[in-house]
Amino acid sequence: MNMNETAGQVKATALMLAATNTELRNKALKQIAFAISTRKDEILEANRQDIVRSEKENLSAPLLKRLKFDDTKITDVIDGINSLAGLPDPIGKTLQATELDDGLELFKVSCPIGVIGIIFESRPDALVQISSLCLKSGNGVLLKGGSEALETNRILADVISKAAEEAGIPVNWLKLLETRSDVNEMLKMDHYIDLIIPRGSNDFVRYIINNSNIPVMGHADGICHCYVESDADLDMALKVVVDSKTQYVAVCNALETLLVNSAAAPLFLPVLKNAMDAGKVELIGCGRTMDIIPVKPATEEDWGKEYLDYKLSIKIVDSIDEAIGHINTFGSGHTDSIITSSGEKAAKFMSLVDSGNVLWNCSTRFSDGYRYGFGAEVGISTGKLHARGPVGLEGLVIYKYKLTGNGHIVAEYANRTKTFKHRKLDKDCPL
Amino acid sequence: MNMNETAGQVKATALMLAATNTELRNKALKQIAFAISTRKDEILEANRQDIVRSEKENLSAPLLKRLKFDDTKITDVIDGINSLAGLPDPIGKTLQATELDDGLELFKVSCPIGVIGIIFESRPDALVQISSLCLKSGNGVLLKGGSEALETNRILADVISKAAEEAGIPVNWLKLLETRSDVNEMLKMDHYIDLIIPRGSNDFVRYIINNSNIPVMGHADGICHCYVESDADLDMALKVVVDSKTQYVAVCNALETLLVNSAAAPLFLPVLKNAMDAGKVELIGCGRTMDIIPVKPATEEDWGKEYLDYKLSIKIVDSIDEAIGHINTFGSGHTDSIITSSGEKAAKFMSLVDSGNVLWNCSTRFSDGYRYGFGAEVGISTGKLHARGPVGLEGLVIYKYKLTGNGHIVAEYANRTKTFKHRKLDKDCPL
Repeated sequence: MNMNETAGQVKATALMLAATNTELRNKALKQIAFAISTRKDEILEANRQDIVRSEKENLSAPLLKRLKFDDTKITDVIDGINSLAGLPDPIGKTLQATELDDGLELFKVSCPIGVIGIIFESRPDALVQISSLCLKSGNGVLLKGGSEALETNRILADVISKAAEEAGIPVNWLKLLETRSDVNEMLKMDHYIDLIIPRGSNDFVRYIINNSNIPVMGHADGICHCYVESDADLDMALKVVVDSKTQYVAVCNALETLLVNSAAAPLFLPVLKNAMDAGKVELIGCGRTMDIIPVKPATEEDWGKEYLDYKLSIKIVDSIDEAIGHINTFGSGHTDSIITSSGEKAAKFMSLVDSGNVLWNCSTRFSDGYRYGFGAEVGISTGKLHARGPVGLEGLVIYKYKLTGNGHIVAEYANRTKTFKHRKLDKDCPL
Repeated sequence: MNMNETAGQVKATALMLAATNTELRNKALKQIAFAISTRKDEILEANRQDIVRSEKENLSAPLLKRLKFDDTKITDVIDGINSLAGLPDPIGKTLQATELDDGLELFKVSCPIGVIGIIFESRPDALVQISSLCLKSGNGVLLKGGSEALETNRILADVISKAAEEAGIPVNWLKLLETRSDVNEMLKMDHYIDLIIPRGSNDFVRYIINNSNIPVMGHADGICHCYVESDADLDMALKVVVDSKTQYVAVCNALETLLVNSAAAPLFLPVLKNAMDAGKVELIGCGRTMDIIPVKPATEEDWGKEYLDYKLSIKIVDSIDEAIGHINTFGSGHTDSIITSSGEKAAKFMSLVDSGNVLWNCSTRFSDGYRYGFGAEVGISTGKLHARGPVGLEGLVIYKYKLTGNGHIVAEYANRTKTFKHRKLDKDCPL
């Protein structure tokens, strides 16, 4: 079967999946979790084969680590699926109800987007997580994983689709693609695929964004800032900056550039230097930073770089406006924090900084779906349409309008025989 | 100034506009409405020049009609702006508030998208309508109108930006582009423009969609269907079909293809033929239709055609499933209606038809922002992300997360010193 037929099948099935009820989708999720635990040995064996082959092929250590799908990860994905089954159903919700006129009622009802294309590198847990999120929200899914995880992805896709099918979910809602050429074909299938979610490195995500007409939800860069105002509690600032930078460096919400008000810099930077030296964080800075603490120079290019490493660039600014301007110029719209004792300045910063997450007196590392309490996370989006910041299940749904009448025609309203009421209704869509 | 600088200015101003308060934006809208009425003569004169020039250039009659901006249209746009000023502010709304932990509060707050690129043909009222919608929702706007309306667009952009400026809106939130090459440059400016809304013919919209990386909100085709089930009240079906097809043929929500259940066809089609003959609607149909009433044959191509004219294609189907399949194959996801006396069949149709508007026992012509009671309409979207169907002001806004803490760091949650509460708060964001 060619790619076009496969995608067509998923599209057709997705329409049926959209009409399934909450109980069926939750039952299927629980059966998937159960099947993963009962077929654990097959999964571990497949992953062992992938690891052995990848080691022979000299896959890098970090990628090997991400490829590994062991007991702990299996327990994690099972827990994740079971808690997902317990979340409220994101589809079929009446978001708005209006009586347009007697017997003419309009309902705005949440529904799945349709077919989601997932392209991910290494991590087999991404396959399980995303396909269960799609099932929960009634979306069909086309998956393309990295070739290094071929065997693991194959068995996982098999376990998931068989368990879902046994629970009564229409077949073909999930399809695994295996060849590299499939990806490029996938990027062109805007008639079948409604949304692409890429999971992987910056370059990988950027490639997807630049090579598809299909809307992409995700983020390439996470160039996060922390701005320390002149009136900041410097002990708090230190604590927050250290956490933002060092709590986990390899993630998109880690701090990359520190902006310090010139009035606070002489006192703050030496203390920061000590803390960062202790944490083995390399510092680079602007000329004025170099006047205060011994650091290597930062170039203009550094302001737009995501290190994902024990490295921090520092710039001294003279005002909150300069800080905001810097962030809006060099940032990536991900997460930016201000440390200040002034609510007014915080409000200004949070209003003018054009990012999905704007924080006051806390660590950039908080910007995450689980910490935000979403229960499930689809990903983090730096786009400005549909969903922004950490995206929960609501990122996988849209809505349709359902209008029910009794022979109503527009001509009668156009000629003013009848007039609209437009009265809000407090009821769910009966259909 | 080149296009890039212009767009950069609008982007920078849009960030400030996002921080303006409701009163200021509403005051500016009222001043714009007032300025349009006081500078009416200038506007009429500019439009007269456009009409005279376009007549010389042999612009087609329908386009000339759309270009005309007379007293009636001026009154209409003034009324529109004043009623827009009275609508609730779509930005700054707290959509969700959560206490993550003591003193760590998360707010999801609606905000403008940023910079909206509007590309429209002929109609100068589109300029007024869209720029006032952008101002209301705090978005910057880059406008490109058709060259035939050059003088009218110029004066309108001048009236609007001067009046807004006098009211206290930051300058440069609105810019008018005038050359054709500007459009192609605009389509590439994904670093400055967040959303493009095209207004014009199908081909025009399709060109924009196919030639930009920027998200596009709109619709190319409106291939709307009506399906008459075997159990339909045929009097009602006739009334609804006639209204859907003939109440106004040149619009996207007019009926293009009629599907009739084979059990209803022998009785329904002859009656329909009489009514359509009376309304001077040309009918074409499938072979089975031709067996019942004398019509020209419809080709496979006809099922995917938007006539926008007194023409209707008819197909006989044997089941609701066949009808749904036809619509999902040939439709454009716009508006589709079922006529049936069965609530169960209606529910099935409305669940399985993958369109923004699914209707039961009423005319397709109802799918429209004003008839839906939105107060203002940004346009109709057949896309499945962000906004779908008739789009009100909410289509021009997104949200950001504002998180306020008191020195909170993630390390304390990672090492389990602290745990998250994730308690819903019933309060507005204080910042």
